[in-house]
Amino acid sequence: MPWRIHKKRHLTSFQVIILGFAGVILFGALILMLPISSAQGIITPFHKALFTSTSAVCVTGLVVLDTGSYWSVFGQTVIMFLIQIGGLGVITTATSVFILSGRKISIMQRSTMQNAISAPKVGGIVRLMSFILKGTLLIELIGALFMIPVFCHDFGLRGIWMSIFHSVSAFCNAGFDLLGTKWHPFVSLTSYAVNPVINIVIMLLIIIGGIGFFTWEDIYLHKFHFKHYHMQSKVILTTTLCLILLPAVFFFFQDYGNLSGIHRLLASLFQAVTPRTAGFNTTDLSMLTGASKAMMILLMLIGGSPSSTAGGMKTTTFALLLLNVLATFQSCDDVTAFGRRIDTSVIKNATTIAMMYFILFFAGGMTISVYEGLPLSSCLFEAASAVGTVGLTLGITPKLHILSQIILIILMYLGRVGGLTLIYAVFSDKNKRKARLPLDKIIVG
Amino acid sequence: MPWRIHKKRHLTSFQVIILGFAGVILFGALILMLPISSAQGIITPFHKALFTSTSAVCVTGLVVLDTGSYWSVFGQTVIMFLIQIGGLGVITTATSVFILSGRKISIMQRSTMQNAISAPKVGGIVRLMSFILKGTLLIELIGALFMIPVFCHDFGLRGIWMSIFHSVSAFCNAGFDLLGTKWHPFVSLTSYAVNPVINIVIMLLIIIGGIGFFTWEDIYLHKFHFKHYHMQSKVILTTTLCLILLPAVFFFFQDYGNLSGIHRLLASLFQAVTPRTAGFNTTDLSMLTGASKAMMILLMLIGGSPSSTAGGMKTTTFALLLLNVLATFQSCDDVTAFGRRIDTSVIKNATTIAMMYFILFFAGGMTISVYEGLPLSSCLFEAASAVGTVGLTLGITPKLHILSQIILIILMYLGRVGGLTLIYAVFSDKNKRKARLPLDKIIVG
Ligand SMILES: [K+]
Ligand SMILES: [K+]
Repeated sequence: MPWRIHKKRHLTSFQVIILGFAGVILFGALILMLPISSAQGIITPFHKALFTSTSAVCVTGLVVLDTGSYWSVFGQTVIMFLIQIGGLGVITTATSVFILSGRKISIMQRSTMQNAISAPKVGGIVRLMSFILKGTLLIELIGALFMIPVFCHDFGLRGIWMSIFHSVSAFCNAGFDLLGTKWHPFVSLTSYAVNPVINIVIMLLIIIGGIGFFTWEDIYLHKFHFKHYHMQSKVILTTTLCLILLPAVFFFFQDYGNLSGIHRLLASLFQAVTPRTAGFNTTDLSMLTGASKAMMILLMLIGGSPSSTAGGMKTTTFALLLLNVLATFQSCDDVTAFGRRIDTSVIKNATTIAMMYFILFFAGGMTISVYEGLPLSSCLFEAASAVGTVGLTLGITPKLHILSQIILIILMYLGRVGGLTLIYAVFSDKNKRKARLPLDKIIVG
Repeated sequence: MPWRIHKKRHLTSFQVIILGFAGVILFGALILMLPISSAQGIITPFHKALFTSTSAVCVTGLVVLDTGSYWSVFGQTVIMFLIQIGGLGVITTATSVFILSGRKISIMQRSTMQNAISAPKVGGIVRLMSFILKGTLLIELIGALFMIPVFCHDFGLRGIWMSIFHSVSAFCNAGFDLLGTKWHPFVSLTSYAVNPVINIVIMLLIIIGGIGFFTWEDIYLHKFHFKHYHMQSKVILTTTLCLILLPAVFFFFQDYGNLSGIHRLLASLFQAVTPRTAGFNTTDLSMLTGASKAMMILLMLIGGSPSSTAGGMKTTTFALLLLNVLATFQSCDDVTAFGRRIDTSVIKNATTIAMMYFILFFAGGMTISVYEGLPLSSCLFEAASAVGTVGLTLGITPKLHILSQIILIILMYLGRVGGLTLIYAVFSDKNKRKARLPLDKIIVG
């Protein structure tokens, strides 16, 4: 069929990612529908399986069925693999499939991929892939080993399985957990709120997973010589540090006056780490004050770093928007960071991405609130959680009607593939240039 | 004193505006403190007079003392003049002072002013000023004449004064009203919710005042030949139309199901017109649903059009951010509108201004909520109302502590001078160029 081959050749990398993602989600949903996937051996309705699969592949963690009690170990394993595929990300997964299938990667494809992930000095795409895969498995293994003593003490041999699942879920910033039971579903990590081992291991996994593969490479190559890192890694590490410490101080004073000493410190730190974009919780979120919920929404929308397992509009986007404000106030034409100039087109992309996330978040939250008649603050929280692929919830998701769940599915999907595909779309269609229109003035502000 | 003259010569237009604005506010506050300004002949505390003066000069309309019952006719007249000065805006007022004081305007100053207000084809600054002043007084007079029958029917001869005050207040998008009494303070226009004359006249005054002087000029010169207008006027008129009709439809279906026919239509339209940035209200805002309040907050932050009597981040800023999203999705390097290209530096400024308003709004609302222990939604509403110089309130402003009132004063001041002075700052310091740093890549989204 020559038509088909012709068609295949002309799929852009952009389309490969969009379709590949959708394919994995659909495939996952179909497997999760099978009786073998549920603990009770029943067929799961399509829309609930689709919601779970989307949530796993988009590493969100919002659930309509309690992961620990509803799904069988087979179902949980499927979810874990979906999380792993989603967490490694579209580019990495696509490249893996290419390499594993023995297909030759053209220079054009290599160049598009390197452009898209902004890796100017990485030797080959194969070496890079191997570094990412080995790093991921190693870190997840170490994380699991640290958690085994605690979980095996509480759950016997099942503790091994729980350690592996939670290590993968934390590293991939997925936020799925197996701690719910028939009698206490959707509990997340609240029973381990004061356990330092689980808290610290999970936090480290989240942070390492969330800073991105290229930041790992910089740390791996240059160790502690911060000034030798790429500008992007410097921006990511500085922004990440600020976005953990400042909110932690806020939560420490605003919310946890009833906790003492080390527990207050742990709870505040965990609360600051988890919304960007892990989605576990150790304390009851509905008890937070309005200001704290708004702070969480902001952190959820910002999310993790690019080329990582995390979602959201990304730390770099947020940092560039602030640097742009700084540049304007200093009357600088150029936005700069760590002695490097940032191209104007990147600022424009950052603005687009921030606007896109804001519009999705606002429109989604408003629609759900109006449709369900629920308080706006809860619906905005849930929408931010979906579009930032966070998975924190004030408890309303399992009770929503199908239409609202479909909105959340769309938000999760766009939230995960949105930013990346945008860049792809721009990179892939450069030949669509038209004659430039005449310049005209317009006043803003 | 040669040092003083030397200093004076080097005041940039940017500094003239900042200081001129602060001067008018302080001067107004001092006059309002005098016993003659209050109805009871008492001295008003400085911070309350300052709040009122700031609110009037920044055409906000948030009040801590009821305008109709607390101030004497003298005090109300002072407030009206402060509104008129604030409404005509910093540039216009500064230029008026220059012209009236008989000082010669240097070519340098003319050019800075024309640059700042983006008026490429306006002949001279004197002709422009005369056009703006004449237009303003004429429209305010016509507005007052239309309202006199209604107000005189209800208040006798005092109705003439009320018509003039409300016409100025509406045209300048100030939102001050004289309808409060000792027994029913802070009522705004609720008693005229179903009066078509007052509704339509006030709405038209708000809209005409809010579309900006250059849009008037286009309409004056080209009448109904829309395609002959400047690109800026086209963007302003289109955006204004959308930002009135879409929210009106939303409010029509979301909130006013209990009203009927023409009343429902009037209330919905008024509710859509007033938050950008007039600040009158005809219905009780605390009865709105959460979604409607959020819609109001968004509209308040967007505000009116540049070079107008209105505040907020401006319709053009909002339109450019959306056009930028569109351009990215269409893989266009340039942001375009109505067949014209928009310079990248304008997009960067728009991003800065939007971020600035968002940061002020969010930080202000959060601080007040944490400090006062009030619900976040009300505090965010009040902060948006202040920074967008809108003046709508859910009723908490008069009850706030001094610290929160100072925050609102700062938000009003920055909200009114912020955007403009930013542009000025950029225009005035162009000589501060440094060697460009090397370009480096960074991923966003
Ligand atoms: K997540
Ligand atoms: K106002």
